Amino acid sequence: MVTGEERNPVLTVQKKRDGGELSKAEIEGVISAFLAGELADYQMSALLMAMFLKGMSDVETAALMDAMLHSGKVLTLKGVRGPKVDKHSTGGVGDKVSICLAPLVAACGVRVPMISGRGLGHTGGTLDKLASIPGFRTDLDADSFERVVRDVGACLNGPTAEIAPADKRIYALRDVTATVESIPLIVASILSKKLAAGIDGLVLDVKVGRGAFMQDRKSARKLAETLVRVGTRAGKNVSALITDMATPLGRCVGNALETREALDLLAGQASPDLLECTLALGEEMLLLARVAKTRDAARKRLTKALIDGSAARTMERIIRAQGGDGDVVSNRTLLPRAPLEAEVPAASSGFVGSIDAREIGLAAVALGAGRRRADHPVDPAVGIELLAKPGDSVKKGAPLARLHMRAPASHVADQVLAAFRVTPRRPRRTPIVLERIAPRAR
Amino acid sequence: MVTGEERNPVLTVQKKRDGGELSKAEIEGVISAFLAGELADYQMSALLMAMFLKGMSDVETAALMDAMLHSGKVLTLKGVRGPKVDKHSTGGVGDKVSICLAPLVAACGVRVPMISGRGLGHTGGTLDKLASIPGFRTDLDADSFERVVRDVGACLNGPTAEIAPADKRIYALRDVTATVESIPLIVASILSKKLAAGIDGLVLDVKVGRGAFMQDRKSARKLAETLVRVGTRAGKNVSALITDMATPLGRCVGNALETREALDLLAGQASPDLLECTLALGEEMLLLARVAKTRDAARKRLTKALIDGSAARTMERIIRAQGGDGDVVSNRTLLPRAPLEAEVPAASSGFVGSIDAREIGLAAVALGAGRRRADHPVDPAVGIELLAKPGDSVKKGAPLARLHMRAPASHVADQVLAAFRVTPRRPRRTPIVLERIAPRAR
Repeated sequence: MVTGEERNPVLTVQKKRDGGELSKAEIEGVISAFLAGELADYQMSALLMAMFLKGMSDVETAALMDAMLHSGKVLTLKGVRGPKVDKHSTGGVGDKVSICLAPLVAACGVRVPMISGRGLGHTGGTLDKLASIPGFRTDLDADSFERVVRDVGACLNGPTAEIAPADKRIYALRDVTATVESIPLIVASILSKKLAAGIDGLVLDVKVGRGAFMQDRKSARKLAETLVRVGTRAGKNVSALITDMATPLGRCVGNALETREALDLLAGQASPDLLECTLALGEEMLLLARVAKTRDAARKRLTKALIDGSAARTMERIIRAQGGDGDVVSNRTLLPRAPLEAEVPAASSGFVGSIDAREIGLAAVALGAGRRRADHPVDPAVGIELLAKPGDSVKKGAPLARLHMRAPASHVADQVLAAFRVTPRRPRRTPIVLERIAPRAR
Repeated sequence: MVTGEERNPVLTVQKKRDGGELSKAEIEGVISAFLAGELADYQMSALLMAMFLKGMSDVETAALMDAMLHSGKVLTLKGVRGPKVDKHSTGGVGDKVSICLAPLVAACGVRVPMISGRGLGHTGGTLDKLASIPGFRTDLDADSFERVVRDVGACLNGPTAEIAPADKRIYALRDVTATVESIPLIVASILSKKLAAGIDGLVLDVKVGRGAFMQDRKSARKLAETLVRVGTRAGKNVSALITDMATPLGRCVGNALETREALDLLAGQASPDLLECTLALGEEMLLLARVAKTRDAARKRLTKALIDGSAARTMERIIRAQGGDGDVVSNRTLLPRAPLEAEVPAASSGFVGSIDAREIGLAAVALGAGRRRADHPVDPAVGIELLAKPGDSVKKGAPLARLHMRAPASHVADQVLAAFRVTPRRPRRTPIVLERIAPRAR
């Protein structure tokens, strides 16, 4: 039964179904009807499936992004002086970059109003990792968020209810209607949330490989290019790095373990791949913020902030400003620790050829570090430490990994062992940053 | 958020989205989850859009039909002896064939358990037409339906709530999600309803042209062929005629007017196109029921039932059995009549070249004969009589049509006039039955 108010949105669904390009007015009409309850969930999900299967032009994607962005509060961060740049990762295993990158970049003079998410499935989420810091709050309201960014240079917050409510409702629908894996829908979702936080620039870390959402280089590039094009069209400075997620990033997977590893980096101790990924993304942020003019100058500035301790001190200030125990920066034993540890020994001698990031991520979920359903809790203490990384030589019986557990879990040890491929010859080293995508005009 | 119960149906949506062929178990799983409330409307509508855009094989269509058919009560009509055959039309303007065909065929020995629908948009519905007969009820329960078929040979009923509830819910969703015009979904919907009434055979009248759902011959043929293939696969005797719906069928459009025209046919007075359409469909029904062995024998049998009055007497018995005033068969003035009549004069002399069925249908809706929304009432008395049909010569000022109105409606007169194309040369006569589609093996 078609009522007068519903008529137009249904025609919009029909147009997309038939492969037409929707106008900005049509997309705005659909989103506002959806929020007003005039377009039902079942109509929106039919439209989302049509968008999934028929695709969306950049103009349509930008219009959808814009409509979702303006569906709620759009922060201006007027009280915050200086360039405001955020980073977004498409998600991976062991990706704790946000936690070390935000204070590092803030220490270099960039303002970082960062909105992060929670983990789902085999990938972790920054909010879950930060929750392992005693007292740390990621549910600040818009005013507190702005104040923290202004006072200490960065704030690591969760998405407030006021920001992009259309995106939240649409994402919940996509999750249960098999319409998640669509580049235009992903792009509109990411950018609407990020741009609503009042940023000037955005660096995207598009992960590719077994542990990532994008499994192959071509689709990762397509996603990165679309993000950069649509973000640029929206008047923001946007660039993207495509980074490797065949292997877990760094050495730890699990919430407190990853937070510890991020704090270790700020203290000068880091796995080379994690350090390189962090510095490469930091360079992009400093360039977009025009805090540095060249890549070399940016890297020097970042390295200085690590060496002189200003990055670590900034992290301490962020944690205190968000209600957490700042002492954790110098005393990582304040982080929760699992009661049980067990090592996973190598079954043969040779070189670590690869570590399947997806399998490690699933093993961490099995230990309780992640969630299979959005309403599940996570255990902050459990996780997996990788004691050997690709290229390392291992002897039979020597530990490949250490499990941090709440209770014995021999099947997880088997799963972790199976994720390691040990080969007789040393594998070729692969770079962590695979590609850089910048706007055409720049 | 994905719960355990929803997980499988979502994977089914994903499989169809990616162009896979769903198994019978997957389709049954989706339909039963939908009815159990485990698959939400918004998930079903995403699946429907994926089915619309990716298509469905005959095996999938048959499985969907079967799952919807078994979602409610399946009548067996065990108490009814003899072959049970129904007719279904895809809908047109002036299509009152069911009303004269059911008693005609029943008079020839075929049992006709007919389930009809209401009108929507520019096409009318048999139930609305029958409602113009004083006292006539089309809401009989399953037992009464069976008893009428057994006792008088035919029953013209509406869809009971017990029959194919999944189809009802899915159709309501399709109507508001731009997923109506899909051949597999149409086929599954039609056949599930019809086969649930306990028939052995089904004749399909697939209408084609401006006044029909299918606008071109190719898609009408595809729909007819799919209906015949899937119905045959379900073990039923099924054939289809493709008939012309460029022009309204017969001379009347409007509920009581059409009922009168159908009763006129049973009394021996009929527009040649309506008579030919009725006899051609009747032939198919007699052949499917094996009441006649050849097309010629079938036509002779039908003609005899018209001439000897047995068809009219059967109609009288049907009407009485369904609570209506049987006298209407011999006294058509018992039907409601609109208070106002007006003729639409020809603007020029020549021959009627064509009458746009869709425009006439919309004009009838404008008079109140049809409904724009499923919950609107219809006026039984109003409508349009076509006083000239294609091929007839007309003089300027002579009446082309007569409007039966509740109140003056000059804009409708303009609309009716515009539907007539008057040409200087006599148009070629076009047949009413364009094509016959029978199962390959027969």
